Amino acid sequence: MTPDVAPTVEETATDIAEMEVRGAATIADAAAAALADQAEASTADTPAAFRADLEAAATELYRTRPTAVSLPNALRYVLRGLEPEDDREGEPVKSVDRLRTETVARARRFQRDLEHAQDTLGRVGANRLRDGDVVMTHCHSTDALSCIEAAVEDGKHIEAIVKETRPRLQGHITARALREMGVPVTLIVDNAARRYLDETDHVLVGADSIAADGSVINKIGTSGLAVNARERGVPVMVAAQSIKLHPDTMTGHTVEIEMRDEREVLEADNYLQIASDETSGAKGDSDDGLTVENPAFDVTPPRHVDAIVTEHGQYPPESVVVLMRELFGETTTDPWR
Amino acid sequence: MTPDVAPTVEETATDIAEMEVRGAATIADAAAAALADQAEASTADTPAAFRADLEAAATELYRTRPTAVSLPNALRYVLRGLEPEDDREGEPVKSVDRLRTETVARARRFQRDLEHAQDTLGRVGANRLRDGDVVMTHCHSTDALSCIEAAVEDGKHIEAIVKETRPRLQGHITARALREMGVPVTLIVDNAARRYLDETDHVLVGADSIAADGSVINKIGTSGLAVNARERGVPVMVAAQSIKLHPDTMTGHTVEIEMRDEREVLEADNYLQIASDETSGAKGDSDDGLTVENPAFDVTPPRHVDAIVTEHGQYPPESVVVLMRELFGETTTDPWR
Amino acid sequence: MTPDVAPTVEETATDIAEMEVRGAATIADAAAAALADQAEASTADTPAAFRADLEAAATELYRTRPTAVSLPNALRYVLRGLEPEDDREGEPVKSVDRLRTETVARARRFQRDLEHAQDTLGRVGANRLRDGDVVMTHCHSTDALSCIEAAVEDGKHIEAIVKETRPRLQGHITARALREMGVPVTLIVDNAARRYLDETDHVLVGADSIAADGSVINKIGTSGLAVNARERGVPVMVAAQSIKLHPDTMTGHTVEIEMRDEREVLEADNYLQIASDETSGAKGDSDDGLTVENPAFDVTPPRHVDAIVTEHGQYPPESVVVLMRELFGETTTDPWR
Amino acid sequence: MTPDVAPTVEETATDIAEMEVRGAATIADAAAAALADQAEASTADTPAAFRADLEAAATELYRTRPTAVSLPNALRYVLRGLEPEDDREGEPVKSVDRLRTETVARARRFQRDLEHAQDTLGRVGANRLRDGDVVMTHCHSTDALSCIEAAVEDGKHIEAIVKETRPRLQGHITARALREMGVPVTLIVDNAARRYLDETDHVLVGADSIAADGSVINKIGTSGLAVNARERGVPVMVAAQSIKLHPDTMTGHTVEIEMRDEREVLEADNYLQIASDETSGAKGDSDDGLTVENPAFDVTPPRHVDAIVTEHGQYPPESVVVLMRELFGETTTDPWR
Amino acid sequence: MTPDVAPTVEETATDIAEMEVRGAATIADAAAAALADQAEASTADTPAAFRADLEAAATELYRTRPTAVSLPNALRYVLRGLEPEDDREGEPVKSVDRLRTETVARARRFQRDLEHAQDTLGRVGANRLRDGDVVMTHCHSTDALSCIEAAVEDGKHIEAIVKETRPRLQGHITARALREMGVPVTLIVDNAARRYLDETDHVLVGADSIAADGSVINKIGTSGLAVNARERGVPVMVAAQSIKLHPDTMTGHTVEIEMRDEREVLEADNYLQIASDETSGAKGDSDDGLTVENPAFDVTPPRHVDAIVTEHGQYPPESVVVLMRELFGETTTDPWR
Amino acid sequence: MTPDVAPTVEETATDIAEMEVRGAATIADAAAAALADQAEASTADTPAAFRADLEAAATELYRTRPTAVSLPNALRYVLRGLEPEDDREGEPVKSVDRLRTETVARARRFQRDLEHAQDTLGRVGANRLRDGDVVMTHCHSTDALSCIEAAVEDGKHIEAIVKETRPRLQGHITARALREMGVPVTLIVDNAARRYLDETDHVLVGADSIAADGSVINKIGTSGLAVNARERGVPVMVAAQSIKLHPDTMTGHTVEIEMRDEREVLEADNYLQIASDETSGAKGDSDDGLTVENPAFDVTPPRHVDAIVTEHGQYPPESVVVLMRELFGETTTDPWR
Repeated sequence: MTPDVAPTVEETATDIAEMEVRGAATIADAAAAALADQAEASTADTPAAFRADLEAAATELYRTRPTAVSLPNALRYVLRGLEPEDDREGEPVKSVDRLRTETVARARRFQRDLEHAQDTLGRVGANRLRDGDVVMTHCHSTDALSCIEAAVEDGKHIEAIVKETRPRLQGHITARALREMGVPVTLIVDNAARRYLDETDHVLVGADSIAADGSVINKIGTSGLAVNARERGVPVMVAAQSIKLHPDTMTGHTVEIEMRDEREVLEADNYLQIASDETSGAKGDSDDGLTVENPAFDVTPPRHVDAIVTEHGQYPPESVVVLMRELFGETTTDPWR
Repeated sequence: MTPDVAPTVEETATDIAEMEVRGAATIADAAAAALADQAEASTADTPAAFRADLEAAATELYRTRPTAVSLPNALRYVLRGLEPEDDREGEPVKSVDRLRTETVARARRFQRDLEHAQDTLGRVGANRLRDGDVVMTHCHSTDALSCIEAAVEDGKHIEAIVKETRPRLQGHITARALREMGVPVTLIVDNAARRYLDETDHVLVGADSIAADGSVINKIGTSGLAVNARERGVPVMVAAQSIKLHPDTMTGHTVEIEMRDEREVLEADNYLQIASDETSGAKGDSDDGLTVENPAFDVTPPRHVDAIVTEHGQYPPESVVVLMRELFGETTTDPWR
Repeated sequence: MTPDVAPTVEETATDIAEMEVRGAATIADAAAAALADQAEASTADTPAAFRADLEAAATELYRTRPTAVSLPNALRYVLRGLEPEDDREGEPVKSVDRLRTETVARARRFQRDLEHAQDTLGRVGANRLRDGDVVMTHCHSTDALSCIEAAVEDGKHIEAIVKETRPRLQGHITARALREMGVPVTLIVDNAARRYLDETDHVLVGADSIAADGSVINKIGTSGLAVNARERGVPVMVAAQSIKLHPDTMTGHTVEIEMRDEREVLEADNYLQIASDETSGAKGDSDDGLTVENPAFDVTPPRHVDAIVTEHGQYPPESVVVLMRELFGETTTDPWR
Repeated sequence: MTPDVAPTVEETATDIAEMEVRGAATIADAAAAALADQAEASTADTPAAFRADLEAAATELYRTRPTAVSLPNALRYVLRGLEPEDDREGEPVKSVDRLRTETVARARRFQRDLEHAQDTLGRVGANRLRDGDVVMTHCHSTDALSCIEAAVEDGKHIEAIVKETRPRLQGHITARALREMGVPVTLIVDNAARRYLDETDHVLVGADSIAADGSVINKIGTSGLAVNARERGVPVMVAAQSIKLHPDTMTGHTVEIEMRDEREVLEADNYLQIASDETSGAKGDSDDGLTVENPAFDVTPPRHVDAIVTEHGQYPPESVVVLMRELFGETTTDPWR
Repeated sequence: MTPDVAPTVEETATDIAEMEVRGAATIADAAAAALADQAEASTADTPAAFRADLEAAATELYRTRPTAVSLPNALRYVLRGLEPEDDREGEPVKSVDRLRTETVARARRFQRDLEHAQDTLGRVGANRLRDGDVVMTHCHSTDALSCIEAAVEDGKHIEAIVKETRPRLQGHITARALREMGVPVTLIVDNAARRYLDETDHVLVGADSIAADGSVINKIGTSGLAVNARERGVPVMVAAQSIKLHPDTMTGHTVEIEMRDEREVLEADNYLQIASDETSGAKGDSDDGLTVENPAFDVTPPRHVDAIVTEHGQYPPESVVVLMRELFGETTTDPWR
Repeated sequence: MTPDVAPTVEETATDIAEMEVRGAATIADAAAAALADQAEASTADTPAAFRADLEAAATELYRTRPTAVSLPNALRYVLRGLEPEDDREGEPVKSVDRLRTETVARARRFQRDLEHAQDTLGRVGANRLRDGDVVMTHCHSTDALSCIEAAVEDGKHIEAIVKETRPRLQGHITARALREMGVPVTLIVDNAARRYLDETDHVLVGADSIAADGSVINKIGTSGLAVNARERGVPVMVAAQSIKLHPDTMTGHTVEIEMRDEREVLEADNYLQIASDETSGAKGDSDDGLTVENPAFDVTPPRHVDAIVTEHGQYPPESVVVLMRELFGETTTDPWR
């Protein structure tokens, strides 16, 4: 019997594929909702058929954006209750109705947790900050900012040293957001970071994704900052919702680092013209001996990070794999299982 | 008797004060020449009077630019032969003629060495590079470049990874100079340095000055790069003529780090307008909670540097104080002695 | 309906508040027993009402001593079975009787485990020690001593280097206890620790509490010892019953370090009288420029600790958060949940 | 009632004891099968009696080879469902039939997982390798080789630097196996390892066993290599099936390091005859002042290892204890429970 | 001819032996003066005889206190001009009168330098301190205090964190001296040092002696403090007059660490009586299993020290051997040559 | 006028070239003697002509074996007195007779020092060893052994752990020599070194040569051992006569590492035949994918070495460049000047 995919699943898949739905949290929320719809709409009359329906829906959703970290996490979270019989070690087989109820319940719980995740992790991160602390930021992360915001709401005086974060200068967005919270900001170039670590109580960054070996993939420059913070004795805190835990990395996959357009590097050049004269427009390639390389992210190993702050509490980076498995299950096969 | 200062000394002092003579090497050369003129012009008839003449000339020259590292070095080098009697432990007193001859000879030797210093240290530094090596640079240093140039002239294939070096992007000047030597260049933002250390055989930088405790004062960002290089196992080479050895640091003085105008940080901002809107023009100070700090240099301790390359050969940073004392003598008093 | 708190709960709360019941283990045991009484006494006729009764009792108990680490741990452990309906994902709702049975069973298991915890962890810790090993201790910890005692009972020859542990010299108590076990003891001042690390096979300490990020809060001086032990290649073992796992730290809270009376620092002064003459009696504050600071504890990060030994086995500090969650559950809200 | 041990249990025990069944995986497989037979053959009519039967069988099997890591793991895995009543917190007691079904199911799942374990972990490890990577190996490990093999099957070009691994030169076996996969091999003496780390992207080794504190017990030389790899910035990957997780270490036991015959050290001596002349044949002991010590393994602490690759995915070494507990359960008593 | 020792040499020798003359500087000064007297009194009529006279005097002086570091330094400094003929490479032989003049001049210069040494090094050390800096001290050192005093005299605001320095609590003397300079003092137990390093800009200690390999021998506890300071990124400054440079260490000798009376450790015990009850009075030895060990000093390797401040300027510890050789000459034989 | 080379210079050059004279010390001795002969035989009648004669002799000698470290050292040492006029700063020009006398004196002093160098450095190294110390050796070095021998002669009990030192097993020669001194020896494979560092008080090695940046070039495996020794807190001592100080490295030259025949690696293979079957005889090259690489030496950076022991006393590796310059002079040009 061909699995039966509910109309809302197809709509959601289309919306994700066409970027109508975007942003890690929004995609994850839509995917979970679509699976709940699928569970309710399924006309399967055996547990196996029900399972096949749901997996078909998940597969269709997954294929729309296979590199988004949050999408397979949503799918895996919701479908974790649908394990095949032979893993059940003699427990009585669940009925289709029971499976449907459980699946919808897991989808709703996922959505509910997701809705509050940033606020919750913000409060966790805020608890690590003390009144009067100085925080150094890199790039722009709403997860990281929610920690500072919650601390400010708790009445703590927090100051920030904001790295401008070349090439795209997202530090300026962070600076503005912090000013709106009333946080005094000192803006510095990235090169000045080590010098200002002497005045810093915490380095606080977000994450693009987090790997099962405890590595943090984040905006280029994070790893160099973390090495210096360790050498200076400044703790490094990473704020990241659990949808950033990268499912493929449980099976050893490494995260591909995006190489971005060289114009991000060259456009800021107000002083010298060599770049635009001598380089071609093509990314990372040039026929005259001058190449511009512009990687978007780098990888910080767990030994240079002190805590990963999530909506499920804080973890040393070395044990975040346990949360990853608890939420999204073990897999050794399909990327979204 | 009032010491008698030769006319050329006064002219040289004026030229230095009015920036007619500038640049570390040019100032040092002019000062040494002026002292030679003073020695030849002096009408002193006792060793003590001769010494007084020369010291008066040196003092006049020194006062024109007391923060220039090379100026007191030149004065100290030339006048080292004129120690007072009671240090001589029974050796026969030197005649005025002998003192004059020696002083002029020391001045000439200083000028001659200075003329060849960059070429000589370039050959020393080049010897540390092997055919096929990849060198990472920070900021722009002609001493550092002379090492690469000499290696290229030796027929070695050298490639360079050039950090753009915010805020002033001097990496672009370095990139252009390297391209003119035929060296393939990869330009990166400063944040990408740690990632590219994996492909780097040597970090090579210049120095603004070098302290007696082996610390290297150089363009902001050097120390953070050196920490990462050590962590990655990449050796760090500093290329610096001996006139960069900071004489005040022998007596414990620290080097004052210049804070530069915040506009160097903000001008590159093509994307966001918060900076110019929200900050005042005054450097490092603002009444609305957003401050820009723009230190020009930082300090790299000797344990993160592998070798200092000078025209007198290479030294571990921990023993460069010995060269400093050999060239410029010990002092516990006046800054230029 | 107002929750109905059993009389024994009120008595226990009073006893804890009035210090009739004290010591981490005794408090935890009494709290668990009181909750079992509450479960048996509850007349609630719905699961929700039963839950409300138990939570009311827990809240009353918790308020008696909110800074005791073991108290919320006991409450959280016993009440973990009472999660609200909507977390159950379709599982059938449990009856009041089932909830009562389970709650009492969890309380009893907690008490039983607690009774044997120190002996059990002592055997675990003893297994890390080999015949002939030399152990360095800091402060006085019965958990730590139980490891040595179990090793001695296993017939292993163990020797101890005991730091006196200023300011309160608890090392003397440790020395006496070890002598009673027949362990040869070398008593040293704290300053001599690094020198004697060359002769030490294990540093063994207890813990005041352990944080979710793997940090160990213990008697002042522990962190400095651990840094030296790592630098000398000596492994550091922390012995701590699971009731020392600090529940607030899962949500990022830091542990407040008690500042103790300056007289603990000054009283030992038999040689010089400056302290009593020049300092006021007030703690950490003085109007004549001489202040005494006397923090009770410090924080050792997980990278300087090799193993945390509990009655549930040994853990690297980075994964003790998993045991913490397994025993006491995840919370992002109330301190005792 | 005396527990009733099935004939196949006795046969399996004999086969293991007499080395008819050997090799970590083969022993584990046979033990699990024997327990399944025991479960099916048991005539017990109460849950307690059934449990006693199974435990008697496990004990008999365990005694045949108490130092084999995989044997107690198999026993513990299969018998984890048979916890005594009072741990069940009010859940309904399981019937003998239910226990039998579950036990057989767990045994089958164990066997099935074991059959695929090396292939599965090979794919996990392969995912950590990128096209063009150079891998350095130590000793001979089929788990480690399966990672390279899977990478090669994925079409990645992998090169290997193979340490010869004195004293038994197992690196030659590794070299041959890699050549058969088409992997270019550079064979070096162990002393040359640090020099070739500059050209290495991953150190990849197997494990004799892995301890609960995250330490890796492996062929002598592993720990020294790992220290150098960390110092050079080269990540260290350990490939190990989960049957290598050492159950005794959860309770703090250390792994006894086998001292092997000195002839392994001396036999390679083609150049000099001092060894055979001056040493007795007795291992590690000699009456003339020349002793040969030949330990088989050493211990690498978790801070020098980046990832442990198992058939259940990859883990930082600090959290592998969680997998150990998940698979084999917590115990504080018998070695195989 | 028997060498002829001047009466003042004998008197000085007696005074040193009978502790009439004591203190490192006083002994050194007296020895230099005695050698000057000897040079003036010598009736030798050949250079060889003159040398023999002086060496005989030096030997007599040396034997009075062979473990005092400053005594052989004074002797070596003064007698450096008396090298035997065959080292002179063809230079004309010096007359007795010339030797006498030179010897007296060297003795006078030594005495003059010694008189000003502490003030001079204080100014050097003060230059390393900036206005507002917080300095942590260990034990009591007038050399170290002179650095703070000179900084205060320069108008800098300096605060101090003073370790009490068990067992003899010399920190109290330091605290009093700093209070007299007007420096705000925070007194802490030694165990609290690491915690307060976060608020410390410099660790500043004196030295008992300094070895040719750059090691610093100083009050027990210095090395553990230095390791923590390095780990926290706080620079360590050692203040030591050049007479503390240990001459024997040039030839590889290690410095014997004095073991002091156990009563220094036990007397402070106001709380517990175990010590006096259970230990014998004998130092470091006891027949009942409780030993007290009380080493006076420890050894800090050069990699944990940033600068050694002397009256000849500051040095990285790795190059202080050069100053040692410059002042006191190379020797491979007698301890005082 | 063509320089005039004495017959003994030609004979010595021939002897060195034809390996009649070999070994670092023997070559150096012969070269110094030849220069003394040249100085005595020279018929030059001007200082410039005398200098030209000597330089011609030196050049002829140098060309016989340009890679021998000791040869240019001998030449540079002896000819240091012959600096050209214009470096003399007014000092009177020396006569030919004076130059001749000085040159011969320097040659004789060089020879005399060389004769005693190993004994002298042995006593220096012995002073670093204490009674009861355990020393770990790598490879075979008579300089290193002389330290142990001198310690034994001083009545100290020394034990040794001897690494076999693959590929050529020179550790067996060391073991035999130590046995002849009566030193108890434990022989281990190189892989076991880290494990036995726990029982080691000193790592003691010789040096092939020492570079101006403080690096030690020694038998392959030294650097990996030094990294582990530092990590374990075991000091590393390098014993090397001053003729091992590599003159070219003052000008930045790196030391070329010899690649030796692969048969040294393969010959020991008594177990497996893959090597001889699959590899060609050519060094480091093979057409079937199996390459053997056999570098003779590696480079240990100064931060992993604690002391370099020479006949001029001990030095931290960072300041050995000062001794190098003192003995052999600064040069920026010819390799032997």
